[in-house]
Amino acid sequence: MTSAEIIDGRAIAEQINGETMARVREIGRQGIEPGLAFVRVGEDAASKVYVGMKERMCARLGIKSATHVLPAATSEAELLGLLAQLNADSRTHGILVQAPLPPPLDPAKIFAAVSPAKDVDGFNPVNVGKLMLGDPGGFVPCTPAGVHELLIRSRVEMAGAEVVVLGRGNIVGKPMIAILLQKAPHANATVTLCHSQTRDIAGHCRRADILIAAIGVAKFVRPDMVKPGAVVVDVGVNRVSDPAAKGGYRLVGDVDFEGVRKVAGKITPNPGGVGPMTIAMLMRNTVRAAAMAARS
Amino acid sequence: MTSAEIIDGRAIAEQINGETMARVREIGRQGIEPGLAFVRVGEDAASKVYVGMKERMCARLGIKSATHVLPAATSEAELLGLLAQLNADSRTHGILVQAPLPPPLDPAKIFAAVSPAKDVDGFNPVNVGKLMLGDPGGFVPCTPAGVHELLIRSRVEMAGAEVVVLGRGNIVGKPMIAILLQKAPHANATVTLCHSQTRDIAGHCRRADILIAAIGVAKFVRPDMVKPGAVVVDVGVNRVSDPAAKGGYRLVGDVDFEGVRKVAGKITPNPGGVGPMTIAMLMRNTVRAAAMAARS
Repeated sequence: MTSAEIIDGRAIAEQINGETMARVREIGRQGIEPGLAFVRVGEDAASKVYVGMKERMCARLGIKSATHVLPAATSEAELLGLLAQLNADSRTHGILVQAPLPPPLDPAKIFAAVSPAKDVDGFNPVNVGKLMLGDPGGFVPCTPAGVHELLIRSRVEMAGAEVVVLGRGNIVGKPMIAILLQKAPHANATVTLCHSQTRDIAGHCRRADILIAAIGVAKFVRPDMVKPGAVVVDVGVNRVSDPAAKGGYRLVGDVDFEGVRKVAGKITPNPGGVGPMTIAMLMRNTVRAAAMAARS
Repeated sequence: MTSAEIIDGRAIAEQINGETMARVREIGRQGIEPGLAFVRVGEDAASKVYVGMKERMCARLGIKSATHVLPAATSEAELLGLLAQLNADSRTHGILVQAPLPPPLDPAKIFAAVSPAKDVDGFNPVNVGKLMLGDPGGFVPCTPAGVHELLIRSRVEMAGAEVVVLGRGNIVGKPMIAILLQKAPHANATVTLCHSQTRDIAGHCRRADILIAAIGVAKFVRPDMVKPGAVVVDVGVNRVSDPAAKGGYRLVGDVDFEGVRKVAGKITPNPGGVGPMTIAMLMRNTVRAAAMAARS
């Protein structure tokens, strides 16, 4: 039995980060120093880890970052006040409000308050709308943009491909189909979006040339759900309890990697697949925001 | 052989128009008089007809309308100037820029200049984004909103249904899937969007419980492409030359109605299906815009 080609997300992300670093130097010669503001509310452990990783990547690539940590009890008005300040600050080119936000903060309202021109996470409705309309002027959410780059740089043919996306979240599933259904290079796919209410999800998976799992169920995609030779991308990050592991849990993707790799043509590992790409795309979006701000 | 139930778009639209008229009277008692501004550029014959139909419906329902006709040579700056005026005018609650716009006017730029709060056509990126994000606070484009209402009022079960949409235009196909894929009442469908690059479009059609054709090809959907009992909605408006007809052409839908009605469970005629619903939804959006403006 053959085994799938592994799509090395770390290596591809490093390639993109190298390109971003070169671009930072290039705009630096024009006197532009890209700046990214992180806003973290409360003490969610995973959020601390994620923001820490992004801060370190900023430092590596020459992007100036500042992290604003607010207490969990922060009011909506206070948070909106900080965002208004950052929106107005000419040295801040990108603003990232780390999810999840502690209740009762309404993430939709908060994300919509980030200026579209600084919305490097692509969650403001203006950018969501531009993506859906096929307008390349907006920012694309980092995780689906990262999946797209993985496919492009792994020479996966998307035009006419049957793409099945599992999961209809605002952060991955919905923008993922919005990217791939466009009449555009590296798109033009026939997309199907499956979710908890889908009747024959295994049947849909089995007809996919490209299967993108972002459904949030550990090892949901089993080998018998994959068409031989298909490209399988695992976006999932699921905690499963493991008494032997540090912290009592370990992280597992949405794909049964060891089983599916024997059937798929190409597959992303997890970790080491989509994760590094998300950060790489955030960095790229930030540098683009800085260059756009300088032109406007 | 049985024949499909005909979904009577005219009757359903009349029902909605009756509801809208009642709502106009209701907000009228609060001193709100809904106002809709039409903007028509150039002398496109179909645009004249469409705007005329919408003006007459406004008059019937008690919505005040004003039509601004600009010459085909209108510059972008002039058109944007008019839109800025209408955006600022407190008696104008809805603004509709009739498509198509004569080149070199850029429709995306023009639609984006209509204030989101007055964008009763739902084409501003903010409203497109809200629809995709599942935020009910925006305006939904009239044609897909009308198809949705047709399905709801014809008691078509959408949760878990296999929906196949033909055509990925910004006006119908894309917003149609955005409506039906949401985790929401009368949605929750598994959606597939097919287009010119789709490999086996007939195969996709044949597995659809609900087939929505907006692909712009006369009689594209043939009986052998429809699953027995499926719901078929015909959004197409195609000109086919007909020397015997007035004007030398007649309008034909995307569905071979006479053939498909023998296979489908429910089917929209064309004309008399989606068309009247588009206008009904425009009226409803306008009255909603007026009520929202009064509350804000």
